[in-house]
Amino acid sequence: MQSIVELIAKKRDGGALSDAEIRHIIAEFSADRMPAYQMAALAMAVFFNGLDDHETGTWTDAMLRSGEVLDLADLGPGRVDKHSTGGVGDKISLPLAPAAAACGVVVPMVAGRGLGHTGGTIDKLEAIAGYDVALGSDDFRRVLQQVGCSIIGQTNEIAPADKRLYALRDVTATVESIPLICASIMSKKLAEGIEGLVLDVKVGPGAFMKTLASARELAQRMVAVGQTMGTRVVAFLTRMDEPLGRMVGNANEVLESIEVMEGKGTADLVELTVTLGGAMVELARGYSFEQGQQMIRDALHNGQALARWNRMVLAQGGNPDKDALPKPTGETAVAATSSGFVTAIDGKEVGLVAMSLGAGRERRDDVIDMAVGIRIDRKVGEAVKPGEPLATILHGGRGAPSEAAQQRLAAAFTVGPQAPPSRPLVIERIG
Amino acid sequence: MQSIVELIAKKRDGGALSDAEIRHIIAEFSADRMPAYQMAALAMAVFFNGLDDHETGTWTDAMLRSGEVLDLADLGPGRVDKHSTGGVGDKISLPLAPAAAACGVVVPMVAGRGLGHTGGTIDKLEAIAGYDVALGSDDFRRVLQQVGCSIIGQTNEIAPADKRLYALRDVTATVESIPLICASIMSKKLAEGIEGLVLDVKVGPGAFMKTLASARELAQRMVAVGQTMGTRVVAFLTRMDEPLGRMVGNANEVLESIEVMEGKGTADLVELTVTLGGAMVELARGYSFEQGQQMIRDALHNGQALARWNRMVLAQGGNPDKDALPKPTGETAVAATSSGFVTAIDGKEVGLVAMSLGAGRERRDDVIDMAVGIRIDRKVGEAVKPGEPLATILHGGRGAPSEAAQQRLAAAFTVGPQAPPSRPLVIERIG
Repeated sequence: MQSIVELIAKKRDGGALSDAEIRHIIAEFSADRMPAYQMAALAMAVFFNGLDDHETGTWTDAMLRSGEVLDLADLGPGRVDKHSTGGVGDKISLPLAPAAAACGVVVPMVAGRGLGHTGGTIDKLEAIAGYDVALGSDDFRRVLQQVGCSIIGQTNEIAPADKRLYALRDVTATVESIPLICASIMSKKLAEGIEGLVLDVKVGPGAFMKTLASARELAQRMVAVGQTMGTRVVAFLTRMDEPLGRMVGNANEVLESIEVMEGKGTADLVELTVTLGGAMVELARGYSFEQGQQMIRDALHNGQALARWNRMVLAQGGNPDKDALPKPTGETAVAATSSGFVTAIDGKEVGLVAMSLGAGRERRDDVIDMAVGIRIDRKVGEAVKPGEPLATILHGGRGAPSEAAQQRLAAAFTVGPQAPPSRPLVIERIG
Repeated sequence: MQSIVELIAKKRDGGALSDAEIRHIIAEFSADRMPAYQMAALAMAVFFNGLDDHETGTWTDAMLRSGEVLDLADLGPGRVDKHSTGGVGDKISLPLAPAAAACGVVVPMVAGRGLGHTGGTIDKLEAIAGYDVALGSDDFRRVLQQVGCSIIGQTNEIAPADKRLYALRDVTATVESIPLICASIMSKKLAEGIEGLVLDVKVGPGAFMKTLASARELAQRMVAVGQTMGTRVVAFLTRMDEPLGRMVGNANEVLESIEVMEGKGTADLVELTVTLGGAMVELARGYSFEQGQQMIRDALHNGQALARWNRMVLAQGGNPDKDALPKPTGETAVAATSSGFVTAIDGKEVGLVAMSLGAGRERRDDVIDMAVGIRIDRKVGEAVKPGEPLATILHGGRGAPSEAAQQRLAAAFTVGPQAPPSRPLVIERIG
């Protein structure tokens, strides 16, 4: 085995690292024998020279095996999860996991917290009084057996090498490497003991992947790496031109998710839940994608998804009564100044305003105000007149928002003389 | 000012860093506020995307100002030093500094130690009993005033940011970046308070620069950066196809250097001393390069260089008597097995054998045996018959070398049926 510095030089000079070399690197890094500065240099070399599918698969597997790997085989086949690259207002996991479970999919979902402008599924669930996001693996298994789905937060036991590497990439400008993104997602998800994964890759100016080409590359790499690891991956490229649904926050996003499970909700939320859920049913149970979509649609309308949701919340110690969710202390509407149609909403700006009001975290130890949020009153394509609300700020403990926050929220909306052509939410399917 | 991680991303994406940004980076790194992992990532980004001449000049200046900058203006004009990118058997500094001083150049030379296959000027000088390589700046100035030249080791006060950065680059595979090499050399040399610098860039398979193109690029960049900093730099690209001279080691290299100052020595040593010295006289005193070369040649032959050498050694506390140098305890010749001409000598292999015998360091804290060395009995182009020595190992405290070391040394020589065409030592001059 060459020294770590020789392995960095090999990648720097465009070489491919062998399986043994990659396993050695991850083992040394995990055991604190490879200093952070060597991993930082290697990550930057990977940013420039990449990892091929085989290297990415080995890297993923090594990170996955750095921690606990759940064996959920006794729960039977059909264990499929979903992962999204993240977007403002993206609460899809909340209606999706119960809907898929209602269709016979086993959904062992380990989700993240929010940082910066995007919210996190776990933060949203914590708006529910009593909901325990930190189940141990025995309790996680019990809920999965009883309900068919469970959503918990990441533990220190799952892929600790990835946790360590991600924290380092975050401060060394090496997050934006497609193979490293791929390995990070896959190592965490495959530690859940799943057989299939449905991936929602957002595309748009406010999304992690800004261009269709980069989103497609990530999706293709994920599908290929899944193949090398024996896990079926189906990816959808979906448009992120505005926040998903009408709610951005925490308690208000839970409420909106419940509405989707009551057969209501905005068209984009329903379409995405049906699309991703359809593919989950397809992977888990062998139905066609179209059949899977119809099954999810039915579960959202016939109350079965909602029933699973209520059972999951109860099983994790939470209060499923939607009236028990934290409520806003007041509202401030942000009005349009001109007449026309909303042509664009800058989701990142909406997310940053929500964060600044207390709905998200700027730093890891910030405390979230669960009642705070933003309601989008006019989505892209909708007409507005001067004085009518574009969006409404839902107050929390701090009361009414500053003038600056209101202005910034208003500025996130572009109003034009005519409605923009409607563009499909789901751009393409890969895998 | 953007955050450090944003500055890393800027360089990663091919941007140019502003003066303020570079000074901020070096200041934060020097003050331990920028962690090593961020500098490692930045250095790798620089490896891929480079620094332009202006950025390199600012980087050099910031590192230079991280420590003590000698002000030797009171010694008068004509302060010029030499730097070599390093080669096996390269003892040129030893005859060169006194020869140039004898021609009126003031030579405040701060030199390095050896690590790996190349020796270091400071290690060689330590073969001289009593020679103090660690003069304080007052004593350094005194010797320069009295003798015109002084050779000392690097201190912690000179360009500490470079010292720190170089140690980091060494373990992160980021040594091989031309702008960073350039800034490292220039920051240390310009801290000597010099007005001109003559650079010897070695080219060849065993040299730091393997190709003519990369050596030329380094030389051009050094000349350009010197220009932006107001220091004249002249660079020579010189061939490194075999060890310089006949001696590789420490005490034996000092002896060979004294021979050069006695008007003897191998042709390559004399030519390189005259070439580099000629340019030093040109830069320091305004003579033509040809006049400068003739002046150096004269100083080597008329005893003036040797007289300066003796005065410098005495002034630094050393014993100038060459018979007082450590002597080998015995010799082992390595013989040719076929008849013909030496067509190549792998200098790196010769250096590694010398190191393994105790003439150099594998690790920073290894202790050198000053008497150990290798004598090249047949240089490239010289004829040899079976049984005649190719090289001779000079024993030290450990006695006779192993069979493996002898075989490895023999294998460093290539013998062919005819003499190779003779190739000029000095390939070209830049600046």
